[in-house]
Amino acid sequence: MDTFHDIRVAAWEANRSLPHHGLVTFSFGNVSVLDRERGVFAIKPSGVPYESLLADDLVVVDLDGRVVAGSMRPSSDTPTHAVLYREFVNVGAIAHTHSTYAVAWAQALRAIPVYGTTHADHLPTPVPCTPIMEDDRILGDYEAETGRLIVETFLDEGLAPEDVQMVLVGGHGPFTWGPTGPAAVYHSAMLEEIARMAWLTESLEPGARSLKSTLVDRHFGRKHGPDAYYGQP
Amino acid sequence: MDTFHDIRVAAWEANRSLPHHGLVTFSFGNVSVLDRERGVFAIKPSGVPYESLLADDLVVVDLDGRVVAGSMRPSSDTPTHAVLYREFVNVGAIAHTHSTYAVAWAQALRAIPVYGTTHADHLPTPVPCTPIMEDDRILGDYEAETGRLIVETFLDEGLAPEDVQMVLVGGHGPFTWGPTGPAAVYHSAMLEEIARMAWLTESLEPGARSLKSTLVDRHFGRKHGPDAYYGQP
Amino acid sequence: MDTFHDIRVAAWEANRSLPHHGLVTFSFGNVSVLDRERGVFAIKPSGVPYESLLADDLVVVDLDGRVVAGSMRPSSDTPTHAVLYREFVNVGAIAHTHSTYAVAWAQALRAIPVYGTTHADHLPTPVPCTPIMEDDRILGDYEAETGRLIVETFLDEGLAPEDVQMVLVGGHGPFTWGPTGPAAVYHSAMLEEIARMAWLTESLEPGARSLKSTLVDRHFGRKHGPDAYYGQP
Amino acid sequence: MDTFHDIRVAAWEANRSLPHHGLVTFSFGNVSVLDRERGVFAIKPSGVPYESLLADDLVVVDLDGRVVAGSMRPSSDTPTHAVLYREFVNVGAIAHTHSTYAVAWAQALRAIPVYGTTHADHLPTPVPCTPIMEDDRILGDYEAETGRLIVETFLDEGLAPEDVQMVLVGGHGPFTWGPTGPAAVYHSAMLEEIARMAWLTESLEPGARSLKSTLVDRHFGRKHGPDAYYGQP
Repeated sequence: MDTFHDIRVAAWEANRSLPHHGLVTFSFGNVSVLDRERGVFAIKPSGVPYESLLADDLVVVDLDGRVVAGSMRPSSDTPTHAVLYREFVNVGAIAHTHSTYAVAWAQALRAIPVYGTTHADHLPTPVPCTPIMEDDRILGDYEAETGRLIVETFLDEGLAPEDVQMVLVGGHGPFTWGPTGPAAVYHSAMLEEIARMAWLTESLEPGARSLKSTLVDRHFGRKHGPDAYYGQP
Repeated sequence: MDTFHDIRVAAWEANRSLPHHGLVTFSFGNVSVLDRERGVFAIKPSGVPYESLLADDLVVVDLDGRVVAGSMRPSSDTPTHAVLYREFVNVGAIAHTHSTYAVAWAQALRAIPVYGTTHADHLPTPVPCTPIMEDDRILGDYEAETGRLIVETFLDEGLAPEDVQMVLVGGHGPFTWGPTGPAAVYHSAMLEEIARMAWLTESLEPGARSLKSTLVDRHFGRKHGPDAYYGQP
Repeated sequence: MDTFHDIRVAAWEANRSLPHHGLVTFSFGNVSVLDRERGVFAIKPSGVPYESLLADDLVVVDLDGRVVAGSMRPSSDTPTHAVLYREFVNVGAIAHTHSTYAVAWAQALRAIPVYGTTHADHLPTPVPCTPIMEDDRILGDYEAETGRLIVETFLDEGLAPEDVQMVLVGGHGPFTWGPTGPAAVYHSAMLEEIARMAWLTESLEPGARSLKSTLVDRHFGRKHGPDAYYGQP
Repeated sequence: MDTFHDIRVAAWEANRSLPHHGLVTFSFGNVSVLDRERGVFAIKPSGVPYESLLADDLVVVDLDGRVVAGSMRPSSDTPTHAVLYREFVNVGAIAHTHSTYAVAWAQALRAIPVYGTTHADHLPTPVPCTPIMEDDRILGDYEAETGRLIVETFLDEGLAPEDVQMVLVGGHGPFTWGPTGPAAVYHSAMLEEIARMAWLTESLEPGARSLKSTLVDRHFGRKHGPDAYYGQP
């Protein structure tokens, strides 16, 4: 009996939902789901197309990135996921895509400003963008360094990963997370939409200004925190 | 027996048609349908995904926004709908989406100029855009204030809600309406298309000029008013 | 027995293919198919959605725009079709859409330059764009004047409607034609793609130059005229 | 018995996958698959729509472009394929499309800079763009000259067709290749996505800079060459 059945199925379902939302093509992207008590997560095997992916193909890895179960090689981005799970202690699942609009902002090395309430409904700050990595780190343990770069960016900018559940890795693309697989994938989809709306906003109004903080706080507060009144109780 | 069956089913069908037209994803957006004689409207419950929405889930609310029937919490935008129904006395249904191109104009805080006959076929003026709300109103009864801001914008600009059946709330997104649920949703879809065409027009010709009034009036008059000759008698 | 069965079915099929190619939504757009010997054409009834359109709904009209058969009111653009059939004597079918990118060029009042071989495969000149109509003609027989404006533009620019099977009506949108219904619709689809490619080309290279005539002639000649060698003999 | 059954079926499947990936409409584009031992390749017949294409319709041609088997006329681009197979000795299949974003870069006469890791995962240099062909070559054996222009561009820029499996023909559009039919089509799809991301990147950041070589090499090396660690062993 597979003692990792739960997280394998959860990660398999989350991975399969990426192409459904138009976030990946071919074998791009990956989602992992964590069992924090046991200190292991299930992640997509490297380079396997979504349509032929089986739940049993998911690879189970510990928080040092060592394979615990599974016969396939895990995603090459596995060390990035491992670092994020170690450092962001309330994260339960992580998604990585190369979705078009989010990648464009990452390639432009730009954080996404808060231009409207669609953005503020999901996070109270710009979507952060890491700087380009230094050469010695690229030549070293590159994928783990990608995770560290994300963590450093959150520390530098004073961001809480519980409020800001998405990031752009400069020159690369987005990572998003949440308490569950569907939440991580939902944040990938919303980031893509926010990225597209912000691009169009600047195209229509080159000097567009960020939404004022009163409005940002009102919208973020409607959905998050003690005074939230959106959704069902 | 459900005495609100008619408006619940009408609102349910209208809400379900939003994702069909590509106007919403996940649980974004909402449509309501009014029974003006009884002074109540049916509206989507807050935060429920469209694919799992049942007609019985629709919440029935009076024109002060008080729940009259239904076990779920109504959309957080309910007070906006209530104000619009009170002030715009010929409106029978209201739709709110976060459709991409309309939101981009709203985030750019710009009314959409009349650049062509596709626009003029539907309304004889630019699509109005409200200013950003003052802080004390944001901190107060925010959703009702959103409705009042729309009404003020129509008064300030001398617009008739029977002719101009759509508006952009600055920094937020579109609200549209009509005599029926399908009409309100149709206006959401047309607004999105008008917004996209106008963005492309400016991209091709930064100094694009609005359509002259003779042509606007001819096209609007083909479809609306006493001399209309479009459609079947 | 319906003596107009052939053109009604041909026009019905061509109209139904418009939404299939993503060229129209709701009841926008119309296609007509001509029987030149009898001097009549079948055209979409005004304001009827494509999904509920039946072949028997098609209205048969003579070249003066008078209804010959059918119980519905024909498209409000019928007089435009009639003028084009009278003046462009080799045209067998006409399509009118509000497709997004073609409309954007029409709203920008710009002809579409020949930027590449995809364009030159289909026509050897820019896609012409009519000027905005004078007020007295707008206030007169507007739809027939739209047809005359197209014919005048072809005369002024020395264009042959057998080579250039598409036009933009300034401030409005595209009309395309061909010997048959499928050909007219095909030209609507290709115009939309040409319009999109040309917009992107200018976005990437604001000073983009038109393709030189040697290359235009080579590509147009591959598919058209006595030396054509594209397709099956 | 058809001794060319294998390459015909392989080329048929590859051609049929082009519309599936949104890379062609109508009869545009073509894929060929080579049997290098026998010195023949199977290619799409000219001007045949994808939905009615049968495996037996594929035309078998030798490396001088002479028809060896098949009753239809081969794609008018056949001489381009033949030149590329003769000169690029490790290529096993070639795809040609008029996909929108790749064509736009070709029409802008611009190579696509390496703006991010999605690009670097697939090739270590910009996507090359040939210059516009000289008049005497256009008037001569045009399609073979297109192949020679591609080969010259690779020689001039010192590119290896094993590493850079795609090219833009200036004013025309993309050709891509690979060891197999699916690989050639995959490169067409990735080129289109790379082209779209790069366009958006410049739109967001007009002075965008190319990714530094350390990062390009790391990503290209993850997937290609002796130290590759992406995918399954």
